[in-house]
Amino acid sequence: MDSSLAQHRQQFPALSTQCYFNYGGQGPMPQGAIAEISSGHEYMQTHGPFSNTVNAWAHQQMQQVRGAIAAELQISPTTLTLTENVTVGCNIALWGLDWQAGDHILLSDCEHPGVVGIVRELARRFDLAVSICPLLSTLNHGDPVQAIAQHLRPETRLVVISHILWNTGQVLPLAEIVALCHGYAGRRGQVRVLVDAAQSVGVLPLDLGAIAADFYAFTGHKWLCGPAGIGGLYVSPNALADLRPTFIGWRGVTKDAQGNPIDWLPDGRRFEVATSDVPLYGAMSEAIATHQRWGSTADRYRRICHLSRLLWEGLAKLPQVSCLRTAPPEAGLVSFQLADGGHAQAVQTLEQNGFLLRMLLYPDCIRACVHYFTLESEIERLLGAIAHLVR
Amino acid sequence: MDSSLAQHRQQFPALSTQCYFNYGGQGPMPQGAIAEISSGHEYMQTHGPFSNTVNAWAHQQMQQVRGAIAAELQISPTTLTLTENVTVGCNIALWGLDWQAGDHILLSDCEHPGVVGIVRELARRFDLAVSICPLLSTLNHGDPVQAIAQHLRPETRLVVISHILWNTGQVLPLAEIVALCHGYAGRRGQVRVLVDAAQSVGVLPLDLGAIAADFYAFTGHKWLCGPAGIGGLYVSPNALADLRPTFIGWRGVTKDAQGNPIDWLPDGRRFEVATSDVPLYGAMSEAIATHQRWGSTADRYRRICHLSRLLWEGLAKLPQVSCLRTAPPEAGLVSFQLADGGHAQAVQTLEQNGFLLRMLLYPDCIRACVHYFTLESEIERLLGAIAHLVR
Repeated sequence: MDSSLAQHRQQFPALSTQCYFNYGGQGPMPQGAIAEISSGHEYMQTHGPFSNTVNAWAHQQMQQVRGAIAAELQISPTTLTLTENVTVGCNIALWGLDWQAGDHILLSDCEHPGVVGIVRELARRFDLAVSICPLLSTLNHGDPVQAIAQHLRPETRLVVISHILWNTGQVLPLAEIVALCHGYAGRRGQVRVLVDAAQSVGVLPLDLGAIAADFYAFTGHKWLCGPAGIGGLYVSPNALADLRPTFIGWRGVTKDAQGNPIDWLPDGRRFEVATSDVPLYGAMSEAIATHQRWGSTADRYRRICHLSRLLWEGLAKLPQVSCLRTAPPEAGLVSFQLADGGHAQAVQTLEQNGFLLRMLLYPDCIRACVHYFTLESEIERLLGAIAHLVR
Repeated sequence: MDSSLAQHRQQFPALSTQCYFNYGGQGPMPQGAIAEISSGHEYMQTHGPFSNTVNAWAHQQMQQVRGAIAAELQISPTTLTLTENVTVGCNIALWGLDWQAGDHILLSDCEHPGVVGIVRELARRFDLAVSICPLLSTLNHGDPVQAIAQHLRPETRLVVISHILWNTGQVLPLAEIVALCHGYAGRRGQVRVLVDAAQSVGVLPLDLGAIAADFYAFTGHKWLCGPAGIGGLYVSPNALADLRPTFIGWRGVTKDAQGNPIDWLPDGRRFEVATSDVPLYGAMSEAIATHQRWGSTADRYRRICHLSRLLWEGLAKLPQVSCLRTAPPEAGLVSFQLADGGHAQAVQTLEQNGFLLRMLLYPDCIRACVHYFTLESEIERLLGAIAHLVR
C-alpha cells in the first residue's frame, strides 16, 4: 500500500516538508488543483477577463464543479448551492425559513461558534426560543438520538447538529436523528434538520438521499483538499419549498427582457449571490478527481478509520496522554488531552518540530486528524514527538 | 505620456492581445497580482495550510488589504468590511436594518438586478413599501436630487442608488443626495443611503467622509483590477450603530474562554463570515499598489475623463451611432446605440475581432469602458471597427 501511496502523496506539496495532522482545519491542495488556479487566471486574462467567451467558460467551470461535488455526495447537481464556505451554507438555511415568534431551535452543545452566533441573532430578531442539547457527554456512553428526542418540543422547528462533531470526532447517527425529527409532530409540521457537515464531507461515504437531511452544509477546503473559498449547501427537494433566498444576487434570479428579476432559478442556484473567483471551481473539481483516482469514498473511509485507530491506540499507550474517546474513532479526528494541560504550548512546540495539529477550547484538548493518505510512519513519528513532549 | 503608459500596460497580460473596453464588467489583473495568488498558495502549502504560522500570515494579509483599500477610499480601515463582491455588501446593509411593516425603500430605476432582487424579497418578508425613482431620464436634463426629493415619504427609511449608473455612466451628485436624505425628517429618523459603488471605486477620487453616505458597497474586480471574489462595504460610524450582522460566522464575533461567541467585533469585521481564499487578498493589495505607482486617484480620474471624452466625441461623429449622453462623459463608461439595434450581435462580432465590449438590456445599448491606461490608439481602432460594423 505505502509505495503507491507515496506516489499519490507526491501530488500534495504540503506533505513533503511536514507531518500534517490538520485536515479538519484545512486540507493540503494537490498540485493539480493549484495548477488549475493558475491556468484559470491565465484563461481569463487571455480571453477576457469579461467577455462572452469567458462567460461561457465560467458557466462550464461551475457546471463541472457542481457535477463533481454532486457525484461525491451522491446527490443531484440541482440540489446543490455553491457557497463560499460551510458557514454561509448554514446562514442560507437558517435565515431562509419563515420564523414566527416562539419557534424553537435545538442546537447541540458541540456546534461551531459561528453557527451558534447565527442562531443567537436569529433568536433576537424573531423572538425565538433556543436550547442546547448535550451531546458531548454521549461520546462514550449514552445515546445521542435519545438526547435529542428528550429536547424536542411542540414549538421545535429546526435541529442544528454536526454530522461529525468537530471537537470529539463523534459520528452522529444522522439518518436516525432525521427520522426522529421528521416523525415528530411539531405545531408547525415536521422538524427540519440542518447539518454542519464541515467534518464529514470528504470523510464518510454519503448517501444524502437515504439520510434525508433537509440542509447539509459543507466546505471544500477541509477533507476534500480544495481551495479555501468554496463550499456548498445541499437542500433536499422537500425542504426547498420552505426555504426563501436571503442574501440575493444576479446569480440566483431569472430576468425579463429588460433585465428585471422576475423569479428564482428553479434549483439550488437560487441561493447563490454574485461574482466569485471562478478559477477556484476548477481547482475544486481537480481536488475531487485526485481523490477519486486513488479510490472510492468507501475505500478512503476504510483507510481513514484504520489509521485513526492506529493513532488512537498509540496515544492510549502513552503516559500522561488520554484520548477523549474510550473506543476507536469512527472517523479521522482523534482528540486527546495531556495530563498537565498546556495544549496551546504543546501545539506550538509540535509545529516548530514539523508536526501540525491544533488545540481546541471546548473541551480543552489537542486534535490530530488523519486522512486516507496519512502514512503509518507519520503516525509513529507523531507518537514519538508527543512522547518526547510529555516525558 | 504614451511611452511610459506602454511600459505600465505591460504589467497587464490581458492588454497585450486584445482591445479591452470592459472595465465596468471586470478589470484585467496586473501580473504582479496574479503572482501574489501563486505565491500565496505556495506559502500556505509550505507552512500549513492550517497552522499557527499560516493563521498569523492570513491575519497580516487581511490587515494589509484592509489598509490598501481604506487608503484608496480615504476611510479608516475600521469602517471596512471585506466581502466577496458588491452584492454581498448591499445584502449586509439591506438585511441589517431593523425593518418594520410599512417602512419605505426608494430605489432608482437604474439599479442592478441583483440589488432589485434583494429589495423585493425584503419587501415581501417585512411588508415594506418600495418605489422606483426615475433617474435614467435625468441623464441629459433634469436634476436627480430633485427627482429623489420628490419621492421621499415620511415612511422612507432607505434610498438605494448607484454612485455611477452602470448603464448610462451618469455620475450622481452623491454628497447632495445624502445631505437631502439625512436632512429629511422621516417617521423613523434620518433617511439612510445605500450606495452601489460597483462603477465608482477605482474611478472617482473619493472622500467618503465628506460624502457622508451610510453604506457604500463596492468590488475589487472591476476598476481596481483585482481578482474576482473580493469586495467591500464601508459603513459610516454613524450608521454602524443601526446595523446588525445578518450572515454571521466566526470571523465577526468575539469569544469567551470556551470559544462561545459573546459579542461582535467592534468594527466592520463584525459583518464578515468565515473562511475565504486568503491569496486573493494579497492580489488585491498588489493591484491597488500597481495603480498607485502610476498616479494618484485624481490623476487617474483626469485621464479617464480625457479618454472617455475622446471616445464619446469619436462615436458622435459616426453615422448610425448615437451616444446616450449629449454631453461628454463624467467617468469611464460610454454607452451608445446603433441605429439598427442588433447590439448583442455587434458585441459578438467586435469580440471576434479582438474588441471587448458588452451589451446592456436597459436601455438597450452597447457599453464601452475606458480606464486610465487605455491608449488613444485603442480608441481610434475601436472607432474604426464600429464604423466598419455600421457601414
